[in-house]
Amino acid sequence: MTTIIRGGTVVNADRAFRADVLCYGDKIVAVGENLEAPHSATVVDAGGQYVIPGGIDTHTHMNLPFMGTVTQDDFFSGTAAGLAGGTTTIMDFVIPAPKQSLMEAYHTWRGWAQKSAGDYTFHVAITWWDDSVHADMGTLVRQHGVNSFKHFMAYKNAIMADDETLVKSFRRSLELGAIPTVHAENGELVFQLQQDLLKRGMTGPSAHPLSRPPAVEAEAANRAIAIAGVLGTPVYIVHVSCAESLDAIARARANGQRVYGEALAGHLVIDDSVYQSKDLEYAAAHVMSPPFRGKHHQAALWHGLQSGNLHTTATDHCTFCAAQKAAGKDDFTKIPNGCGGVEDRMSVVWDAGVNSGKLTPSEFVRVTSANAAQIFNMYPRKGLIAVGSDADIVVWDPEGTRTISAKTQFAKGGFNVFEGRTVRGIPSTTLAAGNVVFQRGELMAEEGAGRYVERPAFAPVSAK
Amino acid sequence: MTTIIRGGTVVNADRAFRADVLCYGDKIVAVGENLEAPHSATVVDAGGQYVIPGGIDTHTHMNLPFMGTVTQDDFFSGTAAGLAGGTTTIMDFVIPAPKQSLMEAYHTWRGWAQKSAGDYTFHVAITWWDDSVHADMGTLVRQHGVNSFKHFMAYKNAIMADDETLVKSFRRSLELGAIPTVHAENGELVFQLQQDLLKRGMTGPSAHPLSRPPAVEAEAANRAIAIAGVLGTPVYIVHVSCAESLDAIARARANGQRVYGEALAGHLVIDDSVYQSKDLEYAAAHVMSPPFRGKHHQAALWHGLQSGNLHTTATDHCTFCAAQKAAGKDDFTKIPNGCGGVEDRMSVVWDAGVNSGKLTPSEFVRVTSANAAQIFNMYPRKGLIAVGSDADIVVWDPEGTRTISAKTQFAKGGFNVFEGRTVRGIPSTTLAAGNVVFQRGELMAEEGAGRYVERPAFAPVSAK
Amino acid sequence: MTTIIRGGTVVNADRAFRADVLCYGDKIVAVGENLEAPHSATVVDAGGQYVIPGGIDTHTHMNLPFMGTVTQDDFFSGTAAGLAGGTTTIMDFVIPAPKQSLMEAYHTWRGWAQKSAGDYTFHVAITWWDDSVHADMGTLVRQHGVNSFKHFMAYKNAIMADDETLVKSFRRSLELGAIPTVHAENGELVFQLQQDLLKRGMTGPSAHPLSRPPAVEAEAANRAIAIAGVLGTPVYIVHVSCAESLDAIARARANGQRVYGEALAGHLVIDDSVYQSKDLEYAAAHVMSPPFRGKHHQAALWHGLQSGNLHTTATDHCTFCAAQKAAGKDDFTKIPNGCGGVEDRMSVVWDAGVNSGKLTPSEFVRVTSANAAQIFNMYPRKGLIAVGSDADIVVWDPEGTRTISAKTQFAKGGFNVFEGRTVRGIPSTTLAAGNVVFQRGELMAEEGAGRYVERPAFAPVSAK
Amino acid sequence: MTTIIRGGTVVNADRAFRADVLCYGDKIVAVGENLEAPHSATVVDAGGQYVIPGGIDTHTHMNLPFMGTVTQDDFFSGTAAGLAGGTTTIMDFVIPAPKQSLMEAYHTWRGWAQKSAGDYTFHVAITWWDDSVHADMGTLVRQHGVNSFKHFMAYKNAIMADDETLVKSFRRSLELGAIPTVHAENGELVFQLQQDLLKRGMTGPSAHPLSRPPAVEAEAANRAIAIAGVLGTPVYIVHVSCAESLDAIARARANGQRVYGEALAGHLVIDDSVYQSKDLEYAAAHVMSPPFRGKHHQAALWHGLQSGNLHTTATDHCTFCAAQKAAGKDDFTKIPNGCGGVEDRMSVVWDAGVNSGKLTPSEFVRVTSANAAQIFNMYPRKGLIAVGSDADIVVWDPEGTRTISAKTQFAKGGFNVFEGRTVRGIPSTTLAAGNVVFQRGELMAEEGAGRYVERPAFAPVSAK
Ligand SMILES: [Zn+2]
Ligand SMILES: [Zn+2]
Ligand SMILES: [Zn+2]
Ligand SMILES: [Zn+2]
Ligand SMILES: [Zn+2]
Ligand SMILES: [Zn+2]
Ligand SMILES: [Zn+2]
Ligand SMILES: [Zn+2]
Repeated sequence: MTTIIRGGTVVNADRAFRADVLCYGDKIVAVGENLEAPHSATVVDAGGQYVIPGGIDTHTHMNLPFMGTVTQDDFFSGTAAGLAGGTTTIMDFVIPAPKQSLMEAYHTWRGWAQKSAGDYTFHVAITWWDDSVHADMGTLVRQHGVNSFKHFMAYKNAIMADDETLVKSFRRSLELGAIPTVHAENGELVFQLQQDLLKRGMTGPSAHPLSRPPAVEAEAANRAIAIAGVLGTPVYIVHVSCAESLDAIARARANGQRVYGEALAGHLVIDDSVYQSKDLEYAAAHVMSPPFRGKHHQAALWHGLQSGNLHTTATDHCTFCAAQKAAGKDDFTKIPNGCGGVEDRMSVVWDAGVNSGKLTPSEFVRVTSANAAQIFNMYPRKGLIAVGSDADIVVWDPEGTRTISAKTQFAKGGFNVFEGRTVRGIPSTTLAAGNVVFQRGELMAEEGAGRYVERPAFAPVSAK
Repeated sequence: MTTIIRGGTVVNADRAFRADVLCYGDKIVAVGENLEAPHSATVVDAGGQYVIPGGIDTHTHMNLPFMGTVTQDDFFSGTAAGLAGGTTTIMDFVIPAPKQSLMEAYHTWRGWAQKSAGDYTFHVAITWWDDSVHADMGTLVRQHGVNSFKHFMAYKNAIMADDETLVKSFRRSLELGAIPTVHAENGELVFQLQQDLLKRGMTGPSAHPLSRPPAVEAEAANRAIAIAGVLGTPVYIVHVSCAESLDAIARARANGQRVYGEALAGHLVIDDSVYQSKDLEYAAAHVMSPPFRGKHHQAALWHGLQSGNLHTTATDHCTFCAAQKAAGKDDFTKIPNGCGGVEDRMSVVWDAGVNSGKLTPSEFVRVTSANAAQIFNMYPRKGLIAVGSDADIVVWDPEGTRTISAKTQFAKGGFNVFEGRTVRGIPSTTLAAGNVVFQRGELMAEEGAGRYVERPAFAPVSAK
Repeated sequence: MTTIIRGGTVVNADRAFRADVLCYGDKIVAVGENLEAPHSATVVDAGGQYVIPGGIDTHTHMNLPFMGTVTQDDFFSGTAAGLAGGTTTIMDFVIPAPKQSLMEAYHTWRGWAQKSAGDYTFHVAITWWDDSVHADMGTLVRQHGVNSFKHFMAYKNAIMADDETLVKSFRRSLELGAIPTVHAENGELVFQLQQDLLKRGMTGPSAHPLSRPPAVEAEAANRAIAIAGVLGTPVYIVHVSCAESLDAIARARANGQRVYGEALAGHLVIDDSVYQSKDLEYAAAHVMSPPFRGKHHQAALWHGLQSGNLHTTATDHCTFCAAQKAAGKDDFTKIPNGCGGVEDRMSVVWDAGVNSGKLTPSEFVRVTSANAAQIFNMYPRKGLIAVGSDADIVVWDPEGTRTISAKTQFAKGGFNVFEGRTVRGIPSTTLAAGNVVFQRGELMAEEGAGRYVERPAFAPVSAK
Repeated sequence: MTTIIRGGTVVNADRAFRADVLCYGDKIVAVGENLEAPHSATVVDAGGQYVIPGGIDTHTHMNLPFMGTVTQDDFFSGTAAGLAGGTTTIMDFVIPAPKQSLMEAYHTWRGWAQKSAGDYTFHVAITWWDDSVHADMGTLVRQHGVNSFKHFMAYKNAIMADDETLVKSFRRSLELGAIPTVHAENGELVFQLQQDLLKRGMTGPSAHPLSRPPAVEAEAANRAIAIAGVLGTPVYIVHVSCAESLDAIARARANGQRVYGEALAGHLVIDDSVYQSKDLEYAAAHVMSPPFRGKHHQAALWHGLQSGNLHTTATDHCTFCAAQKAAGKDDFTKIPNGCGGVEDRMSVVWDAGVNSGKLTPSEFVRVTSANAAQIFNMYPRKGLIAVGSDADIVVWDPEGTRTISAKTQFAKGGFNVFEGRTVRGIPSTTLAAGNVVFQRGELMAEEGAGRYVERPAFAPVSAK
């Protein structure tokens, strides 16, 4: 199949320029002005629009089993929603239960992901430690294209990794050429704050942010960075939500350390007033960790993206419906943590970032795909419009608008944290692996069309 | 017994002024110009000299049982050495073994300390946690005048307190009005770095500093401060040795948090080149934790004392002889950690701090006694020359000199990290509880003359 | 005249303790429990109250000639209002016009100040430079007890000191043992921003803060600190109003430099929303420089006082009535800059600082008098309750309340930036030089009773 | 002319990949594996080597008139030396004398530059201000491809720009879409420190660094950044030499401000011990401003390049011979300031940066050409190996070595600050505009072959 995107402005991380883009099969085969294309080629008119690399959401949880139930979005609905929003690759998480074999968990997730409509790849979580974990990490890196491992510093008595596990896994990652990533919250503090709050009768969702203040996150970020620094490995901090965590990253980077940070679309634009709602269902629907923060943190996160102290944007897409959220109606610690967003990230970041002048279009590409592709070693296959790259392309209409709503979204869960927000800047066409999968509001996602993306070890550590 | 100190310049933390000081019994009873004194009064001539509050060493380990042996200095020799150097009060540590009753340990240490020649008081370490520890903390605070608890974040598989213990003990301290203190080093990192170094054949004392780099200390300091901040308790960091830890303190203080820091005389003037000595006995004699650091850290520590980000000076006096140090000759992790200094701190800090213009005499008093007395609630009994205060007084000769040497010191252990250093600024007379206990080089310390100092809870948190 | 203050809790910067205070003439002659006093002594009952050193307002402008008119408060009404609020000493400014002789200006101000009801002393501004200025600085320091010089980095084309003057004057100050102080705003930026705003038709008071953003202040603070650092002199930054200036101070202090900072009561509690008022008279009444700032700056200033990065509190008391303010009704740059507060500072700082738990009573004393006295070398005469100190004493009723209002104030100008604020914590009695000058709402200030306070050079640089 | 570079690894700022590079005329026409080339094509074997964009030296002074003489290197010898070292484009400075017409100066420099062997472009200095300067800035931007203006904050009584000029010129630059750049040193402090040193008899070159301590540079950097921040313009700091300046940049960047920094090869590897040499000629040969700094500053600068807080590397190439330097033998302030390096920068940065693991090859390209090209709007013509880019290409031999020496260099001046340093990593072939101009030690530079590079306004501000 041949497709030609005509008349647009190609935006890569390093520059923007007028060019047509010719795709054949799943690859880009030509980029240039006035390209010729076969008569049979599908023509996409990008006049007055940008042509950008398909978005990479570095942080999603599709089909996540949780408390006897499972997230609303499986790999088909979740990746399809992504395509509608201009995200063509997701990075999901294999999360073995403590004592569960990494390989077993990995294959389970691979199975679930078969139905994906868009490309996907996996971070694998290290939730416990023994010699088999050490060995399986090697197998995953060497034979399965896994080059990043996730560590939860929160969730005590469940999947929390203690310092011993962190040190051992970070060192093993270094040895293998993989990059450690962390969910940075001090699980002990969260646990004890939760117990305190419950004892004091604070059982509703408004207690959730009180149990996870910024200092709890910053402590863990600082600790993970210190461990990485001592061992000499790069480290990637997922969902940086507050100024204090960002400061820990900026300090380390200014000292020459290779630290990367991820911001969630939600954390960039939503503040913690949502937890004060008298509509407890509404408040519970916003329960995720780290929680939404006070307004000045949002300004800080944008500064992080501008300065290069933060590198990627993601969503932590993890959708639960109201009935599932209700499991915690008498105890906020039992509310399933998670919100959606995979469908909305690109537009939210463009609207709040580019339209406001905070980011240039090239910087938008940097933080929505290119940096992710570089840090996690999918570049230049992903994150770049160039000959030889995957034909994962979004024709981005900077004047198109959409009012985000759970009623009209493709993603499931019946809720949207961006509800009612009108964004200017939307995909008019999404190509995934050379196929037009979304166009002018119509989604043509195909179950199973997504491919597993292997990511070799030893990524260049050069993303800025 | 009545003593009058005539003709000196009294130096308190807030100012210096010409005054005589009259002591009766163990108290100061008058401070003023041209005081009258009974004919029977002992007269101490302080002409041309300063009259300062007796030093408080906030950190010593006398009689510490360790690896089947015990430190060279017991409470008599250690406190006597202190008196010779102008230190009239020591703050030592009760260190219960894991699972040992706090009260039992406390009474054991109280017994050992009976022979003290100078006043003493105890921090009690929290090395484990259960309900009895919770209860005993209450007993210690309410009935025994203990208002500070110590937590070792290092020494894995021994006395290390994990985050759970830290959080519980900090919260209990807050409830009781006691202040938590920490030895800040990430014990897990130290442990794994030690194992690595040994595996790589690095068994000598030069490996010691490599197993405890600054980042390991700074991580723990930052973590302790974060926990304290979240819980709302002040916190005191013992033996801050590096710029990175100090930065963590300065950041928190600039954010309004009540954090206090202690610098050791050794860390202020000795650098890590000592570990490179080919004389392995010499290198081993310097093994303490945190280790001596590169030169720029010493400049940072002085800046900390000048800026008020550090508050106290101490020694971590903990003396082992060469034979004891030899236990680690094939494995640096087995070298008993510790160095002396209780006898030298005042002169070392004066010489390097006041003579160089870094500190004023009042600031010297602040960091050698007044701040310690305030933070640990012994003020104005200690740390002040004023009517009603203890007659713990040093007549300080700013022109007197001494060349420090293990050969001439009163302390035991046969080694001195300040060996050969000539200091200008020495005690010409030390009064403890109104008695002249040291004068012009002659020590008149009396075994058992020291008193246990009770320190009530809820110290004012006003020391700067 | 003998007065005894009975039954209170004396609060000094270092501690609080129960004691009576006996005053004879203008001095404190005894401090202790159950003091005896002659029958003739006036007895002040301080039961349940604090007894604190009289406040020092380090920054006032009484009788300031300005644009052909003069501030509403002269030295009598201004100092009298201070006494009513617990401030017994003001530090005012001699401001020579460019080319005017320093000595001439100094004597003019001394003349104006003869009528003061409370004690006063002068900073002298260096608004231009030649050899006579150099000489007069010497005369002022050596013969007139001036030990601080002020430099305006703003007010281009008027009293602004350029870098050449700053460097020369700072160096001369160092030589003389005086401390340079600065009004830190980049005058060039202010000037050009003002012109821009006027050109764009923004002529009202809401343009005032836009012409003096935080970066303009921080730049100047950083520059003054750099100059001081290079020359090796301490420096004092007046009216620090924003987080960015405070950061400049904190950075320098953490690096061991002797930098001091002053916060205004207004900046501590009032935010910049006042400039958005539709009542332009109200907005104009708040025009002062630096302007009131966004709320997060207020939190920062409190942190500065807590951490010891800021040292003093003041008011920049400089009152203009509505008619005077109206001079700028068509051009905000012509609004006379200034607000009042000398009568309110102590209560405002206590209410917002101590009642909220941010400051201890001792810290309150530190930032309202003791630090000022130390930095400007009036200690222990001022800033301390002790034998030999001036009997400038406030009996402070922590439960007393007052609702601040221009209608009930003693100060002139017909406006109060704290209007309507009810403060808890007020003076019940003020003694100045041993005389009861204010008691339970009644002001007994006497014109001419105030004394000029000479301040010798070479203050100890030990205030923290 | 057609040239094919075969078998190398192309290194761009975003990635490295195996590819041949085909050049036709002055452009790159193909990049790919196993490219076909005409038989007539010149073949350059890049086996085992890197193929990188020609270096851009953002800061040189060729043919600079100075004190009645002129620098040793003119535009021919200087650019030719650059080609030998892998630098194919220089950015030189037009420096009008105060009151001289900008256009006149610009045309003078253009004339001098006609003889260049490599490409060149100009920053134009704003050394004074009036309406003609305002107008000429417009002419230069709109008609002559100048998009950067230089401001000297030092050199009082000569070319120093005061705050008024800075504000006006920065604002004019913003309006025109040009970027202001600054030489950041507080000229007033330098001047007065120089006078002091001379008065104290310190006339030799060892006084030079004392007259320009880091705080003097950091103050100016902070001030320029503040002015830029207030006005909303990006700003570029030339020759950042110390940790304190870098901190000012990092602070601003972390706050989202667009600030760029340049490091000189000399500052990255040479420390201030050179000024202590007893060989005064040797010391004088190192006199440049800012001066070489203590060792810890060099570590800081490398951290800056790693973290993205510094962006470019340059040399400030400005060569004076010993006879010229001797003009200051009795007065260090009269030593012509300047050192060479245009020939050595690429190898010095590679050797010290890449060989040590501090920088990846892609990061090397970023800081030696790509960032410069982006910031100054020459990208993708310069700074990139891609179809359509200029055929300015260096075949970089990572194993080749060279011992730098004035005896063997192409540049003039008879001195080299890197004398005796053996670097590993050298150009084996340099192509400029498609021509082989240097190969295996042989220089084939042609006088006049260099082109003037126009740089349009409104560069993307996306360089990180
Ligand atoms: Zn998470
Ligand atoms: Zn997640
Ligand atoms: Zn310790
Ligand atoms: Zn210890
Ligand atoms: Zn002012
Ligand atoms: Zn003022
Ligand atoms: Zn320069
Ligand atoms: Zn230059």
